[in-house]
Amino acid sequence: MKSKIYRLLSSIIILTLLVLTSCGQDKTENNETGDDVQAVARARGLTPEDLLAAAKTYLPSGQKDEYMMFASGGHSGQVFVIGIPSMRLLKSIGVFTPEPWQGWGFSKETKKILDDSNPSGTKLTWGDSHHPALSETNGDYDGEYLFINDKANARVAVIDLKDFETKQIIKNPLSYSDHGGTFVTPNTDYVIEGGQYAMPWAGTYAPLSEYKKEYHGMITFWKFDRKAGRIDKSKSFALELPPYWQDLADAGKLISDGYVFLNSFNTELAVGGDMEGNPPFEAGASQRDMDYLHVINLRQAEKLFQEGKTKIVNGFSVIPLDVLAKENVLTFVPEPKSPHGVDVTPDGDYLVISGKLDPHVTIFNFSKIKDAIENSRFQGKDEFGVNIIKFDDVLEAQVEVGLGPLHTQFDDKGFAYTSLFLESAVARWALGGKWKEKNGSAGWTLIDKIPINYNVGHLAVAEGDNVHPDGKYLVSLDKWSIDRFSNVGPLLPQNFQLIDISHPDQKMQLLYDMPIGVGEPHYAQIIKADKIKPWEVYPEIGWDPGTQTKSEFGVTAGKERIKRSGNTVEIWMTAIRSHFTPEHVLVNKGEKVIWHVTNIERAKDATHGFGLPYYDYNLSLEPGETQTIEFTANTAGVFPYYCTEFCSALHLEMAGYFMVQP
Amino acid sequence: MKSKIYRLLSSIIILTLLVLTSCGQDKTENNETGDDVQAVARARGLTPEDLLAAAKTYLPSGQKDEYMMFASGGHSGQVFVIGIPSMRLLKSIGVFTPEPWQGWGFSKETKKILDDSNPSGTKLTWGDSHHPALSETNGDYDGEYLFINDKANARVAVIDLKDFETKQIIKNPLSYSDHGGTFVTPNTDYVIEGGQYAMPWAGTYAPLSEYKKEYHGMITFWKFDRKAGRIDKSKSFALELPPYWQDLADAGKLISDGYVFLNSFNTELAVGGDMEGNPPFEAGASQRDMDYLHVINLRQAEKLFQEGKTKIVNGFSVIPLDVLAKENVLTFVPEPKSPHGVDVTPDGDYLVISGKLDPHVTIFNFSKIKDAIENSRFQGKDEFGVNIIKFDDVLEAQVEVGLGPLHTQFDDKGFAYTSLFLESAVARWALGGKWKEKNGSAGWTLIDKIPINYNVGHLAVAEGDNVHPDGKYLVSLDKWSIDRFSNVGPLLPQNFQLIDISHPDQKMQLLYDMPIGVGEPHYAQIIKADKIKPWEVYPEIGWDPGTQTKSEFGVTAGKERIKRSGNTVEIWMTAIRSHFTPEHVLVNKGEKVIWHVTNIERAKDATHGFGLPYYDYNLSLEPGETQTIEFTANTAGVFPYYCTEFCSALHLEMAGYFMVQP
Repeated sequence: MKSKIYRLLSSIIILTLLVLTSCGQDKTENNETGDDVQAVARARGLTPEDLLAAAKTYLPSGQKDEYMMFASGGHSGQVFVIGIPSMRLLKSIGVFTPEPWQGWGFSKETKKILDDSNPSGTKLTWGDSHHPALSETNGDYDGEYLFINDKANARVAVIDLKDFETKQIIKNPLSYSDHGGTFVTPNTDYVIEGGQYAMPWAGTYAPLSEYKKEYHGMITFWKFDRKAGRIDKSKSFALELPPYWQDLADAGKLISDGYVFLNSFNTELAVGGDMEGNPPFEAGASQRDMDYLHVINLRQAEKLFQEGKTKIVNGFSVIPLDVLAKENVLTFVPEPKSPHGVDVTPDGDYLVISGKLDPHVTIFNFSKIKDAIENSRFQGKDEFGVNIIKFDDVLEAQVEVGLGPLHTQFDDKGFAYTSLFLESAVARWALGGKWKEKNGSAGWTLIDKIPINYNVGHLAVAEGDNVHPDGKYLVSLDKWSIDRFSNVGPLLPQNFQLIDISHPDQKMQLLYDMPIGVGEPHYAQIIKADKIKPWEVYPEIGWDPGTQTKSEFGVTAGKERIKRSGNTVEIWMTAIRSHFTPEHVLVNKGEKVIWHVTNIERAKDATHGFGLPYYDYNLSLEPGETQTIEFTANTAGVFPYYCTEFCSALHLEMAGYFMVQP
Repeated sequence: MKSKIYRLLSSIIILTLLVLTSCGQDKTENNETGDDVQAVARARGLTPEDLLAAAKTYLPSGQKDEYMMFASGGHSGQVFVIGIPSMRLLKSIGVFTPEPWQGWGFSKETKKILDDSNPSGTKLTWGDSHHPALSETNGDYDGEYLFINDKANARVAVIDLKDFETKQIIKNPLSYSDHGGTFVTPNTDYVIEGGQYAMPWAGTYAPLSEYKKEYHGMITFWKFDRKAGRIDKSKSFALELPPYWQDLADAGKLISDGYVFLNSFNTELAVGGDMEGNPPFEAGASQRDMDYLHVINLRQAEKLFQEGKTKIVNGFSVIPLDVLAKENVLTFVPEPKSPHGVDVTPDGDYLVISGKLDPHVTIFNFSKIKDAIENSRFQGKDEFGVNIIKFDDVLEAQVEVGLGPLHTQFDDKGFAYTSLFLESAVARWALGGKWKEKNGSAGWTLIDKIPINYNVGHLAVAEGDNVHPDGKYLVSLDKWSIDRFSNVGPLLPQNFQLIDISHPDQKMQLLYDMPIGVGEPHYAQIIKADKIKPWEVYPEIGWDPGTQTKSEFGVTAGKERIKRSGNTVEIWMTAIRSHFTPEHVLVNKGEKVIWHVTNIERAKDATHGFGLPYYDYNLSLEPGETQTIEFTANTAGVFPYYCTEFCSALHLEMAGYFMVQP
């Protein structure tokens, strides 16, 4: 008995010691600092859930983010690169708006890229960047290129992810308004740019009384030449659409590869005019219960383009609406109501429609759509002669998700996530069909909702519009932040909220609020960071990032020179820690100056700037880069130029005098 | 015996249960999600120190940061507002560079502020924002205004913290180059702008052969009218300085109030010219062991200005160098070597000099400087006739802190913090004199160092250059990041590292790495967030932030109108969720258009944008704000205007047609 009791006693003591030991480890005491996590949490009012979220998002110095998010910068005109899960802004890429930190739009080379996109007679200095699209191979992001559209003027930009710089901006010749872009086909053969507000073809005028006849919608298919890294305008074309207002688009994939889907609203053809007694747009364009999903047979459209069944508008090939309608290259499916997103499921089988004024997402079955078209099963035509497929004929399901559904993405486990603008929430719902096996649901069922703060527009799931989504993280792109952050005046930041969606059997968990105080993002895509393989420095000294080739104007150390020829002074300068060569440039007033600067560094992060007062130049020269400025020295004086990037201890001594003799 | 054993047994069981219970609490298990902090930390490779740092920096949704940091945006031209300790970018304020998200530089009102700062004959579209200075009352930040200089063109901006918008940008009439600004006197009577690269007075030309005679340094004292919220140029003046290159400055406080201190380098008068066989600047300007601390008696200078002992240069009052020298308004103290920061201790007693090429900080005693001047105890004059105080006469101490000291700030416990550029570290050292009682040190002693990543320029301590510093947090403004973040191409972000300095008896602790991928910050100030009381919406409908008064061009609902007068069409438009009134604006080609837009919302965060294609306009209209655009409609066509800020579910319907008839 006694020995039994002692054995029990010793077991208990050992157990106690074990518990004490493991407990001590779990408390994560930090003896060096004397603080411990729990004491800090108590002092800062953090709940256990907060600590968990902190542990899931914190990145120690030098550790890298798992994902990169590319977010449009809205009317900042730029693109933001954000690390996930740390939600840190890694880079703002200059796209539609000049940006001096990057020298974007200041050098001759980058000015040219921006100027090439100006409509005749104007110079654009901003853009409204909307929907970034990463290049894809077989329907998955490949990390090579990024595309983005400018809603304000209907332009599309190409960004090379080798150096995260914009290489091309192309103006749509038909319109000043786009929205349903950019999206790419599964192998990035085409970059899709859908229009938004109907208007007469750009450069022409027509009164609103001729709206139905003279105003047009459009969708443009920009042919991407991956080898050149540029859009090839000559192989690109557009479709003439009715003057409905187009909204978001998506490309088919797998079974639906070769098709493109485009939403529309204002099928009421409202023209506004509140002061003339007409209903204002927001009422006039919201009367019908159904608008039209545009189903586009891209392969067939490409064939028509190649056969020359186009008209030329503003120098650009456009397939006329009557041809599209006749050939069923364009067909319509009624869709409820004021739709925003059309999102193709990872298998390509289904299209998810989010109608802002309908509490459901509506799911169409692509095979049924294809079947209806092939068998000419239509309910009639719209007033522009386009065949309309019967709603019930192709409907797969409707899921009541909540108020104001806008946009849907997908995870790796058979679930979909829809943003709810009016409800300020994100809904998780289970896909049906063959997805039921994967997600274990009864199919097409609402599973969970998480409130967000506030007014979510788009959302992004890690690789969430790919053939192979990753799930894990969801970012809710909230348009208002109201009380989330310290008051910084009447213009508030947006709010990106990071949500943990890795456990579909649990509630979604809000992890992090990221204020965006530098633009108004619209949409984002999230890619696995290790898919992107950027250069650390430019491949060779004398590199022109504008062409991604060696510049004829680059020089190496010892080859610097100043050459005068007639009224022109040409300078070949180098930059290296801590000096410019030459340090003196003397010209006469009125002379033309052509000034090439080459950063001859080979060390990573050894960027130099070149700032020139009065003449309004700043260049950012990454290791190896050559850039040029060109101007007339029309004002006499002495202008100290200097390195604008803090490059070394003697950075302030990295300067020179530009002297313009009267 | 048996009962004794059982009592022991039951005690042990109770103890075990207690331990298990408390242990469970400390483990912060999250039963709802099933994850726990320790499991997440293990999976993500976080150490106990990392978890502690996460707990110290994480802010749950809706909780506010304790401090706000105002950081210059370098050659982005802007100012960044960052929350501490979360290190989140709350806002980028448009200052020297147009910024369409904020409509900055797009409306007539904001264009005027930028244009007023253009030197004659040019239009500047960027700036190199360097040193932000918060307005002070009695030597402490008061949260009312922020000032910042543009190194590239020598300009100073005034930002009103009621709405975080730039109100004034003033061009220095003497130079195209500044650096030692902005700093303010203890009650913000003056905003200080020191020059950098010597040059002939702006607008004049002189060859480098006349460097000593015709090139000048300068320091300008901008009189700030707090009631008007503007610099009053007519009450401002400058000092002519020798053509040394000026660097950082600081204003005296308390005992040294009324004095201003300004560093210099290149007292060698090197003019560069590597291609002409001269030593390059970084060698030529680093030959001497000593440069000159400029000691300026501001009260005496003000008196000379008021007495008219000035010359007029480019329309601006300048006190000539010979007058300054004669009156000892300017005196010199030799300072080692290529100095960057001169920083006045919180009590105003000492000046801390950081010479980039000297491993010490050098501490001068202000009272000894004053005494030397008052008793004319000088070692001689420099070659421009300025009296030089003996180094040993005013030296208080030197502390060997490490390689490349740049800039020093202070905490609330008697310690100083100096950035070490070459060593990539921050040094903590104890102040001496009467501070020994406070910090318990032997005085003027190095205490601790923390490595940073990499190349720290400035650093900022919470309220760390005030009369009453807060300590707690230090931010190291690192110029290079190299391997800290995911690769985003050859142009890398800077790195702001947050360091916990709250326990001087413990090692400093690195808490957080914040990438800055949107500019190149130079300097920052950190203010207690609750000192700033910004507006949530503008005070009245029809507010002009440019003048901070009610605009004559604002209208309320129902008062919208279009008026034609000769060749001019004037529009008074309102914006409210979800429409513009009017929705149609029809003009004839060639007519002048004056278009006023008023946001008539009163709800916080109800901002609207106004984007107009082709004519290149975007406005950001915060609740109550009125802005104007003015242009000639020189191209015919139809241009859909729309709200660029996602304001409501029917935001896409918030649009109109601007029609220009041929």
